[in-house]
Amino acid sequence: MARRIQWSGHACPIARAVDVLGEPWTLLILRNATTGTARFDEFRDELGIADNVLTTRLAKLTEAGLLARVPYRDGGRTRHEYRLTKAGADALPVLLSLAEWGDEHTRSDPPAERMLIVHGACGARTRPGTLCDECGKSMRREDMLWYRPWRSSEPVALAEPVS
Amino acid sequence: MARRIQWSGHACPIARAVDVLGEPWTLLILRNATTGTARFDEFRDELGIADNVLTTRLAKLTEAGLLARVPYRDGGRTRHEYRLTKAGADALPVLLSLAEWGDEHTRSDPPAERMLIVHGACGARTRPGTLCDECGKSMRREDMLWYRPWRSSEPVALAEPVS
Repeated sequence: MARRIQWSGHACPIARAVDVLGEPWTLLILRNATTGTARFDEFRDELGIADNVLTTRLAKLTEAGLLARVPYRDGGRTRHEYRLTKAGADALPVLLSLAEWGDEHTRSDPPAERMLIVHGACGARTRPGTLCDECGKSMRREDMLWYRPWRSSEPVALAEPVS
Repeated sequence: MARRIQWSGHACPIARAVDVLGEPWTLLILRNATTGTARFDEFRDELGIADNVLTTRLAKLTEAGLLARVPYRDGGRTRHEYRLTKAGADALPVLLSLAEWGDEHTRSDPPAERMLIVHGACGARTRPGTLCDECGKSMRREDMLWYRPWRSSEPVALAEPVS
């Protein structure tokens, strides 16, 4: 890979965001955290990501304030899980705009049933995006479920960010 | 860098979009193409990107159908420039949601005047995003100008996609 310039502190907010979010695994980790994945082993198994890469990406997301390390008890041991913060939850429009673009401009192979967003406020199932196709309103995070039929037969509510 | 899994063809539209868009230089090339940059030398000088990296990224974006190679005459020679297609222009919400996240959750250092979006339909200057803060409506591409004071003292209209 070419040496990366670091864009943190750049005047351009797109460059600053790219510095944190513009990386494939980072975006997929945030996607899975958005639907409730929190533990190291879960991320690893769901994403098929190597341990060392996952460790690096989780550390960077924690350092950047998008994920928070939260302790939990596992038998006699204390372990940590990674939960979305408000800054992590605020990356939702990035994920939705990626979903919208992918839905519009790429195709799954073999063909698969599409991702849909359920807008709880009006009950509609809509194409990915930040606006509801049915009622035209901007969808709030807490009013949104993701239906991803290749993962689950039911729509899932989005993870609540930790404060 | 860790070996990349290719996500093209995956059932998840976010993964498919990440496969094309989830890379720092790619996003910054699209950002500059959005405000009219089209020629190899311009991209190189504006981004400070190495020639070989830029060549690779432009080829991938062209192959993926986000940029189109369009010939132009340079003195006696025919050269090519890279213009946004509809698929490339449709990545605008990804750029705007990155701008919105970066504006909200990161800071420029030293402090700089902020990026604003001018919503031509109502005349308002609004924070980055896909909805106008002033009139509340979804902003259409053709009604939008970007004001980036560290680049230009005037708002600039967005590049028109080639068909």
